Amino acid sequence: MKATVIVRLKREVLDVQGRAVERALGTLGFEGVRDVRIGKLIEIELGDQAAGPELEERLRRMCDELLANPVTEDYELRLG
Amino acid sequence: MKATVIVRLKREVLDVQGRAVERALGTLGFEGVRDVRIGKLIEIELGDQAAGPELEERLRRMCDELLANPVTEDYELRLG
Repeated sequence: MKATVIVRLKREVLDVQGRAVERALGTLGFEGVRDVRIGKLIEIELGDQAAGPELEERLRRMCDELLANPVTEDYELRLG
Repeated sequence: MKATVIVRLKREVLDVQGRAVERALGTLGFEGVRDVRIGKLIEIELGDQAAGPELEERLRRMCDELLANPVTEDYELRLG
């Protein structure tokens, strides 16, 4: 079983790294880039644990306690 | 048009950050986590540019020139 957690900065938080990439792309000659946001993709290998509400609950706790900062970030959980 | 670039460390490259998260999850009492890999999710807003091979080619060049390090990272491109 594999779980994927996508962690994104909340919309209202300035993405400094994204802004720098946006500017660098312009400098390199890539036009038409309106916005760049950079998030994290966390891939967790869980071995032979069965999917289900209990596993999902554990993964949510992992996100809340360690993987995402609830003040500045949102996360999205994908199982399987 | 929105493009998403997923940048992952190559399999053979040690993921130090992932290893630290794996260990921290164990310390917090989450058992059964076999492996954690941490990548980047880059979301690029391209305005009203039309999809097609030309746009894809431009995005590949962005990845090769700026977004991914070809020595240590692989990337995956998703359009739309």
